[in-house]
Amino acid sequence: MKTIIYPERNDWELLCKRPVINRSDLYDAVKAILQNVKLNGDFALYELEKKFDGAVLKNLKVSHAEIEGSAGRIPENLKKSINIAKTNIEKFHKSQLISEKPVETSPGVRCWRRNSPIENVGLYIPGGTAPLFSTVLMLAIPAKIAGCKEIILCSPPDKSGNINPLILYTASISGVRNIFKIGGAQAIGAMAYGTESIPKTYKVFGPGNQFVTKAKEMVQSEGVSIDMPAGPSEVLIIADSSADPSFIASDLLAQAEHGPDSQVVLVTNDPEKIKKVKLETNKQLKLLPRKEIASKALKNSLLILLNSIAECVEFSNNYAPEHLIISTSEPRILAENVTNAGSVFIGQYSCESAGDYASGTNHTLPTNRFARNFSGVSVDSFMRKITYQEISPEGLKNLGCVIEQMAEAESLTGHKNAVTIRLNSLKNA
Amino acid sequence: MKTIIYPERNDWELLCKRPVINRSDLYDAVKAILQNVKLNGDFALYELEKKFDGAVLKNLKVSHAEIEGSAGRIPENLKKSINIAKTNIEKFHKSQLISEKPVETSPGVRCWRRNSPIENVGLYIPGGTAPLFSTVLMLAIPAKIAGCKEIILCSPPDKSGNINPLILYTASISGVRNIFKIGGAQAIGAMAYGTESIPKTYKVFGPGNQFVTKAKEMVQSEGVSIDMPAGPSEVLIIADSSADPSFIASDLLAQAEHGPDSQVVLVTNDPEKIKKVKLETNKQLKLLPRKEIASKALKNSLLILLNSIAECVEFSNNYAPEHLIISTSEPRILAENVTNAGSVFIGQYSCESAGDYASGTNHTLPTNRFARNFSGVSVDSFMRKITYQEISPEGLKNLGCVIEQMAEAESLTGHKNAVTIRLNSLKNA
Repeated sequence: MKTIIYPERNDWELLCKRPVINRSDLYDAVKAILQNVKLNGDFALYELEKKFDGAVLKNLKVSHAEIEGSAGRIPENLKKSINIAKTNIEKFHKSQLISEKPVETSPGVRCWRRNSPIENVGLYIPGGTAPLFSTVLMLAIPAKIAGCKEIILCSPPDKSGNINPLILYTASISGVRNIFKIGGAQAIGAMAYGTESIPKTYKVFGPGNQFVTKAKEMVQSEGVSIDMPAGPSEVLIIADSSADPSFIASDLLAQAEHGPDSQVVLVTNDPEKIKKVKLETNKQLKLLPRKEIASKALKNSLLILLNSIAECVEFSNNYAPEHLIISTSEPRILAENVTNAGSVFIGQYSCESAGDYASGTNHTLPTNRFARNFSGVSVDSFMRKITYQEISPEGLKNLGCVIEQMAEAESLTGHKNAVTIRLNSLKNA
Repeated sequence: MKTIIYPERNDWELLCKRPVINRSDLYDAVKAILQNVKLNGDFALYELEKKFDGAVLKNLKVSHAEIEGSAGRIPENLKKSINIAKTNIEKFHKSQLISEKPVETSPGVRCWRRNSPIENVGLYIPGGTAPLFSTVLMLAIPAKIAGCKEIILCSPPDKSGNINPLILYTASISGVRNIFKIGGAQAIGAMAYGTESIPKTYKVFGPGNQFVTKAKEMVQSEGVSIDMPAGPSEVLIIADSSADPSFIASDLLAQAEHGPDSQVVLVTNDPEKIKKVKLETNKQLKLLPRKEIASKALKNSLLILLNSIAECVEFSNNYAPEHLIISTSEPRILAENVTNAGSVFIGQYSCESAGDYASGTNHTLPTNRFARNFSGVSVDSFMRKITYQEISPEGLKNLGCVIEQMAEAESLTGHKNAVTIRLNSLKNA
């Protein structure tokens, strides 16, 4: 863990920089996969699943029986917990469904916006030994609440051709039953272009390895939307003297265990806190099953001493963390000054794990300083807002000459005529 | 104008296809410009402005005097009209500022979202003989309402090194005074990377030629957000027997005059309407100053006869037009069935020109079928939503074991520990 004592302002920018991940070497490999899927459809998918996931598949689509069978393979207690998390995620995401009222901008001119779900969306869930079934909830629930008609989920099968039952179970209780055994860049290609088996989708969501990330970036330049650009997960903790060092250590480790490239930062105005957090982190690290991964991430972690808590908030706004935990005596007031962050955890009992799983907020959040220009996934991510306007004859009489003058000043006479011809008909009426 | 009578369903997809614009040939040229700006900053910008816009500039930034001087060069009547449009646009966009209430997802667990403006944004306004000052209003007003701290506007200068006074005037009354004389791909590079004179921005907005569009696509893959992918402007009109053919013709021509690649479509259930609209369009076309451009666009325009008005709406949803005009006897009911469109104009007095300039809605809208996955520009486009949560000790006691179980099932023991350590401290308290 790197300790930085009262860094100069000039050094902040450097401290906020994330490691640059150069993925240009992936370009050719991913391009070949995407082209293959585009040209050869299902045939390419079977071939690529054999090649990359070692699975000889009979069907790409997960069968009804496989989905139904998944529930029986999950302990009852865990199912109950998943259901509580699901209920909380639903509650919070349903509150995001807000309908707007029409505005009469000038007499006889009414304008409004209406939510419309993106019709076809694709969700990607990575495979591996630890199945990220929580991400299924985080993507499928808002998609369902938004009202998307067709929700496709792709996840890589194991060598026997099976998807982890936890992924199937959470998908099915979230209302997603179009599940396909496809992983990596080929899954992104399948959802972006469509194949014989997989419907084309207009927006693709979900985390993944470098191939998946590159594939999402590449289909985006072909007009398929993506949730957000990806990077390693991050936490920044703001702590003052009131914060419990063992809590802070546990939060830093929870982040560090994600991967060797996880970004872990503590900023504080209390020199003692840094010492105590270091001790606690080393103590807790020893007991962690994923301690090898975590200790790699901790090597690049930053413990930064600043002059005041206000300065800590300022640093955090510069850093723009994915997760921000505020563990100070007055966390609510500080929270109002946050300008750049994905998700903010207020007070020492609001641990990141709560938001990762069960409090109700979404855990698909902008990393890599993208909190400066992106929001996390929400019901909005699955929606578009269509604008409407209704102009009465009186409305056009009022506003007509404004439109005519502006159109003329832009040399667009056709635009002007569309008003003039209507105004003339009203005069003659 | 191409007339299509009762097309087969199988042919709809073909009728909905826009011309494919292959911009891959631009890649090298635009990449060189972007690299030049990235490496050489202001120096590159002066050089590129000389090369592409023929302007030998002393300063990149428009001076205070130039901005102040612009007002005197605009007729009073036009200024009044611009002010009325501005007021309407402000009214409608202010109504989009909605703050959400916290939700108690389970006892002691409060979650909410807060709007936070994107701090630095860049607006691009194309040059040319007809200055698109209306686009200045459409981008600057929502940026200001959102509360963006730094708003940069770039527009190409003429050969004398001046930006059209209408652009300067509308920018200044919209509260934007950081205006730079830079056009094309170099402007996008300047706003994406920042230079000595131009602050780096996190999101870039605005229309432009192929170079601008390609540059936006390319900076997007470097993590700078863009408003939306671009394509030629479009209108689709749904008309029944009640629609006035001269109104329809004027709306088709208003679209057609934008450019030879403008997309112009009429769908109707009334065979007579097609004949009459053709006659009217040819009549009005002759009087149009931009008739050469418009007649090129009309060559590819589609007049489609379908079996019913319901089928017309269905076709429109497949087409996903940027602008949709519904000119039927019951337009409101049909409007509710629209699933894919940028902006909808209800009834025969709601002409597209109104929304282009002055009704209050935004005219920066998804083209090229992107209405299936993108919304038009709004105050939301200049915002992020940050998620917050505050969990009380009781809240964590209630939800703790849910989080612990789910973390364990994902093999993330560190995530579990962050809860356990807090629950233990509460037990001991």
